[in-house]
Amino acid sequence: MEGKKITLKDIASRAGLSINTISRALKDKEDIAPATREVIKRLAKEMGYVGNSAAGSLRSGHTRTIAVIVSDVANPHFGIMVKDIEKAARKHNYTILVINTEEDNELEERAIRTAISKNVDGIIICPAQCSTENIEFMKRNGIPFVLIGRRFLEENDYDYVICDDEKGGYLATKHLLDIGHKRILFLNGPQRISSAQERYMGYRRAHEEAGLKVDPLLVKDVGLPGDTRRTVKMMVENESFTAIFAFNDVIAWEAMYVLQMMGCRIPEEYAIIGFDNIHSRMFIPFPLSSISSSKGEMARRALEVLLSKINEPGDKKSYREVVDTTLIWRVSTLGHNES
Amino acid sequence: MEGKKITLKDIASRAGLSINTISRALKDKEDIAPATREVIKRLAKEMGYVGNSAAGSLRSGHTRTIAVIVSDVANPHFGIMVKDIEKAARKHNYTILVINTEEDNELEERAIRTAISKNVDGIIICPAQCSTENIEFMKRNGIPFVLIGRRFLEENDYDYVICDDEKGGYLATKHLLDIGHKRILFLNGPQRISSAQERYMGYRRAHEEAGLKVDPLLVKDVGLPGDTRRTVKMMVENESFTAIFAFNDVIAWEAMYVLQMMGCRIPEEYAIIGFDNIHSRMFIPFPLSSISSSKGEMARRALEVLLSKINEPGDKKSYREVVDTTLIWRVSTLGHNES
Repeated sequence: MEGKKITLKDIASRAGLSINTISRALKDKEDIAPATREVIKRLAKEMGYVGNSAAGSLRSGHTRTIAVIVSDVANPHFGIMVKDIEKAARKHNYTILVINTEEDNELEERAIRTAISKNVDGIIICPAQCSTENIEFMKRNGIPFVLIGRRFLEENDYDYVICDDEKGGYLATKHLLDIGHKRILFLNGPQRISSAQERYMGYRRAHEEAGLKVDPLLVKDVGLPGDTRRTVKMMVENESFTAIFAFNDVIAWEAMYVLQMMGCRIPEEYAIIGFDNIHSRMFIPFPLSSISSSKGEMARRALEVLLSKINEPGDKKSYREVVDTTLIWRVSTLGHNES
Repeated sequence: MEGKKITLKDIASRAGLSINTISRALKDKEDIAPATREVIKRLAKEMGYVGNSAAGSLRSGHTRTIAVIVSDVANPHFGIMVKDIEKAARKHNYTILVINTEEDNELEERAIRTAISKNVDGIIICPAQCSTENIEFMKRNGIPFVLIGRRFLEENDYDYVICDDEKGGYLATKHLLDIGHKRILFLNGPQRISSAQERYMGYRRAHEEAGLKVDPLLVKDVGLPGDTRRTVKMMVENESFTAIFAFNDVIAWEAMYVLQMMGCRIPEEYAIIGFDNIHSRMFIPFPLSSISSSKGEMARRALEVLLSKINEPGDKKSYREVVDTTLIWRVSTLGHNES
């Protein structure tokens, strides 16, 4: 019996019963005696029988599979998010397909096409935001979807679960201003994505409240790998600043790495704060101050929203969920005195 | 036309042609004039038509989906591996289901059952190694599979792609011995997994070559979250040692974090080396010496092996692939003089 998927027929011939009896027993139908059902179920388990969910899905129209489309699951921020979505999905008997877009419009389109062609019940997507085309494509195909972590600021009819990016940007910047910094380098994400735009708005609001002007020379877009290293080196050599606010922890770590290579002391010469609070899941040698975006909660809520949309397709409710952000203060911004 | 999956019928009624013509044109059948095929294909693209791969899979018996089962995709080691597998799979038009086992036997069994019930074409699995039951279950069901990163040392008939763990353990330990350390704390993974056993064998071989005995007090299993912090604190307070070899980089980072919290200097008081070389993909403030396990190559090879097994089911070839490991020397083990 080795090396072939176990079928109802295999169980039937082993038990000396009809395929129909086996099938009805495994479905717990009342017309099969309870004791017989027990025996058949035990036998099926022993033999390693696994039902075929595709057959079930042809009947129900549901595959109990959802696609999770993110830019890069190797970035711990997305790795943690995908893990939490998978964990939450498992509780609802859902399985996840994972596809990376690498922030590329074409790969995103391909990811969506793949997901739809695999008949997933819905899609959770962190959009690359190169355009709304791919989102419109999902709408046109009627597939339930929810955006995670990013939204389209001009379009108001896509459901999303994000964190409060503006507040996060504000809290990070205000924290640095409060401990005496006046010139704060902002290593921001690419301007096309909403979280980069909104964190910048928070950065600006904190400056305004403190009666300071934002110096555009201190706001840098470090979208591509390698940009952070080049930018930090160039800024240290050419500009005066005493603190860094990084769009995410991975960029902050890279900035710290460069500063250390250049012999700069953290936080004495440069205070630094990130975003995402990866430290809550993984201990990194140099404790980095950060903004907690409640990744776990975003993941769970995004799944709940998606399941509501899958299970109540007629419901026209809009979901605009914004999870709170909080400041997590660690060594990388300690020890600087008020100036 | 918004909000419903575009069907062949939709295209047919828009084009004023029969469903059969549309279907044959999209399949590039010769009996439809080339110009007509072009027009129909363009129209299908404009309308956002996505074929149904389930229909194709009923014909071919293949779903072009594989399951990737790992312990925790939030650990950057597995995140990077999953990313690389997804990338390689995409090139072959395969999509991946990702399921985490959290190193738990029951979750692993459930993951395998889910994968099989979704009719995946094959499984790449980093086994939890609580027993061989789940692996035998895959064999019994005839699903092609390949182990990644771990193997069963006693069982010789499961295909695998691993890195040279014994050599990696040897290189890390020899490096620390070479720069003058004599008492090396080994923060190892759980003993049930092959990589932990084999890295330990390397640790022992390096000691033997140097004419040193392994002190069993210095070999600790830090399988559970939190264990590393407790163990390092306890060891620093009670044992004498000057270097740490950690089973993986995540454990090494956590050890560095604890040492820093305790006011110990790295590498002056404690040199430390990890495993996995995450630093090659992500800059972490304190550059950690590590053993490169060529995650990318393991991922690609595991996929190749799996595709061979899927595409040549009759082939009884065995795959026992061992990827080389190399020493990557960074700041965390620098600066210690020969004693």
